[in-house]
Amino acid sequence: MANIKVQKMPTIRRLPTYLYKLSEMHKAGVGIVATPELARYMNLAEIVIRKDLAITGVSGQPGVGYKVCELIDAIRRFLQWENPASAILVGAGSLGHALLGYDGFEDYGLKIIAAFDADPDKIGTLVHGREVFDIALLAEKVRELKVELGIICVPATYAQEVADAMVAAGIRGIWNFANVSLKTPDHVVVQREVIAGGFAVLSVKLRQSMENSDRTEPELKD
Amino acid sequence: MANIKVQKMPTIRRLPTYLYKLSEMHKAGVGIVATPELARYMNLAEIVIRKDLAITGVSGQPGVGYKVCELIDAIRRFLQWENPASAILVGAGSLGHALLGYDGFEDYGLKIIAAFDADPDKIGTLVHGREVFDIALLAEKVRELKVELGIICVPATYAQEVADAMVAAGIRGIWNFANVSLKTPDHVVVQREVIAGGFAVLSVKLRQSMENSDRTEPELKD
Repeated sequence: MANIKVQKMPTIRRLPTYLYKLSEMHKAGVGIVATPELARYMNLAEIVIRKDLAITGVSGQPGVGYKVCELIDAIRRFLQWENPASAILVGAGSLGHALLGYDGFEDYGLKIIAAFDADPDKIGTLVHGREVFDIALLAEKVRELKVELGIICVPATYAQEVADAMVAAGIRGIWNFANVSLKTPDHVVVQREVIAGGFAVLSVKLRQSMENSDRTEPELKD
Repeated sequence: MANIKVQKMPTIRRLPTYLYKLSEMHKAGVGIVATPELARYMNLAEIVIRKDLAITGVSGQPGVGYKVCELIDAIRRFLQWENPASAILVGAGSLGHALLGYDGFEDYGLKIIAAFDADPDKIGTLVHGREVFDIALLAEKVRELKVELGIICVPATYAQEVADAMVAAGIRGIWNFANVSLKTPDHVVVQREVIAGGFAVLSVKLRQSMENSDRTEPELKD
């Protein structure tokens, strides 16, 4: 595959949302989806939908739409989610628990197979069926389990230390939920999850909604 | 403010990341930031940085850069994050705990002031200093606290029911972490957080990194 330009990242970020909708349709026995329907669901213009989906190599039939099954397969293939990728997670606090318990990851090609923590009270416990190992065993376990993905859920102050340990253990991709940017060697890929990004979008949408209702409707007071 | 086009949403989603970097620089006493430095940090082309920041109304000085302070203020003003918005959260499970304990939200203009749950074991407890109320009190508390934002952290099967209760209570903006799309009236704004979106980006970056190293070419991080 040729390198995907960074401008395509918003498209890639949206692919799981398409996948979710298409899977729901597939379960409901729907065979074909028209672009306007996807546009309404995604809250995007039809041209954006067509451009988004073109990245997977599938093009819709004009006037008809996309074959649901074909599109699901194409998205999963594009993201290499046909076979789930295994990951380990460091930091079995509340966010770690939430991610270990998230019911959608396997649909999205991700299988978290073990967790690590430094807290003696957590080590040896099971979280949603996964054992929490001593962080000191990270390198050993990563090699034993042949894992290339690591998820960081520790507080910001420990995140760099954990990233260094992951890199030393051979992890190639890091999904970083800590509120800090990490320094890693060039051969390691980091995706930082800025949860507040969604809140920024909500803030702007909400302001627009308020302004529009102020302009178009009499103000309601109780 | 004129309506922001949906194409600008990726820009808006990135603003908290700029804000984080700029705040770090400000704390370190840095007064001016050059576009190439932001481009390296954001892993985006300089032209994308300039376009992103133009949304706030601030333009950099050619050959010099942006005033850190001015840019921080402009981003916060654009997002209306100068005064924190109050929100309530429903679902005091592990994700709810994680969000209630997240240390960065107040910097990002969000203050979660109360939590709700249906589980008698959780009702009346404190989570990171916030009381967990009976979900039956939602409407009463929302009015009493004059809150317009609601965060949904319940399992997917309960999410629509919670959204309906929020709408009935007068909530205008919903941040939905449940893996389901919600039906709400037009005057209510919903931002669905698809956590797997970040994993999709990581999957593609990782594949590129692997393919590039297989070809023994210089590796690209984006």
